[in-house]
Amino acid sequence: MSRQINKERTRRRLLQAILKTIQRHGLGTLTTGRVAQLAGVAQPTFYVHFRSMDQALEQVAEWVAQELDSGLSPEAAAELDRAAEVLEEAVRKCTGSLVQDRKVAEVFLSNRRDQTSPLGRRWSVLTGSLRERMRQIVVQVRPDAAPADAALHAELLVSMIFGLAEAQLDGRVDGLDRATSTASRAIVTSILSTSSVADAA
Amino acid sequence: MSRQINKERTRRRLLQAILKTIQRHGLGTLTTGRVAQLAGVAQPTFYVHFRSMDQALEQVAEWVAQELDSGLSPEAAAELDRAAEVLEEAVRKCTGSLVQDRKVAEVFLSNRRDQTSPLGRRWSVLTGSLRERMRQIVVQVRPDAAPADAALHAELLVSMIFGLAEAQLDGRVDGLDRATSTASRAIVTSILSTSSVADAA
Repeated sequence: MSRQINKERTRRRLLQAILKTIQRHGLGTLTTGRVAQLAGVAQPTFYVHFRSMDQALEQVAEWVAQELDSGLSPEAAAELDRAAEVLEEAVRKCTGSLVQDRKVAEVFLSNRRDQTSPLGRRWSVLTGSLRERMRQIVVQVRPDAAPADAALHAELLVSMIFGLAEAQLDGRVDGLDRATSTASRAIVTSILSTSSVADAA
Repeated sequence: MSRQINKERTRRRLLQAILKTIQRHGLGTLTTGRVAQLAGVAQPTFYVHFRSMDQALEQVAEWVAQELDSGLSPEAAAELDRAAEVLEEAVRKCTGSLVQDRKVAEVFLSNRRDQTSPLGRRWSVLTGSLRERMRQIVVQVRPDAAPADAALHAELLVSMIFGLAEAQLDGRVDGLDRATSTASRAIVTSILSTSSVADAA
């Protein structure tokens, strides 16, 4: 049992070392030797845990995806009764969980569009789920919104979440709570003021 | 003279080949051999034009920065009299010039935060200028805005510009003009509805 725990601990240490290496030097210099050294294990140990660096990167992406996703459970949304508050809460939680760990946040934000690595590909999928979740909340705010308008406002919400996380990481925004609330209110006002499906028809 | 033009043409072809290589395979596999082959020149020719790959990357970053910057001249803004229209026009021009060339746009969006490459470092500076330009326009819209609010709305504008460009590149947004106008109006409404410096005092 304890051996199993130790093995899991080493695997986590290797995943952390991968994140740290990408954060410091980018994907170009990512070798199993460098990662093993940073994790404090012998290089062959890397292959006890992962088939290849690509497989390890998939696990890094999956692990980070789970962390970022945890703040966005539908249960949490159901507790609030007003749709606008649900939206504000979703933006706040999502931005908050993104900036929680600087290393994770920086590697995510820098690589989320990189289609040449397993990290970027997995994170494109994660961004897609986030966008879909935001679209659903926008429709709660304005049930008769034209589909294109709901989709557009979901795009804007996700852009703002990533933008606010970047600004916070780079030290350009102080009160993240006030910032996320301003951002989500801007979107709520905008979605409420666009013409409805009936108007557009 | 014609020899000078030929030299410039080869230099451009090499820069294009660098962009194409990053777009297809990422920064990790960027070698002078691969770039020269794609540009249709012998590998030593690369060093006729650039001291190193890093110097070539700086030139790629600079060249793209100039292209993206051209849409944001203060002269263009002075032609319009209403500040809200200036803002809408700036968002439209900026998003438009970003998506004009898919290769440029994808490499820019994927690498703009990568502090491990000359591309990312130069593009961080470019993003900073864009943010400052947006902040100035926000202050035009609302001269008594609290500095923190002006800065926050500039952050949101830049996030939206990058987000709309991504959505357009990925085929998720049809009418870019309508989308940029919705985005900039949301920000104008928000900046006009936040409490003024006097209120905050």
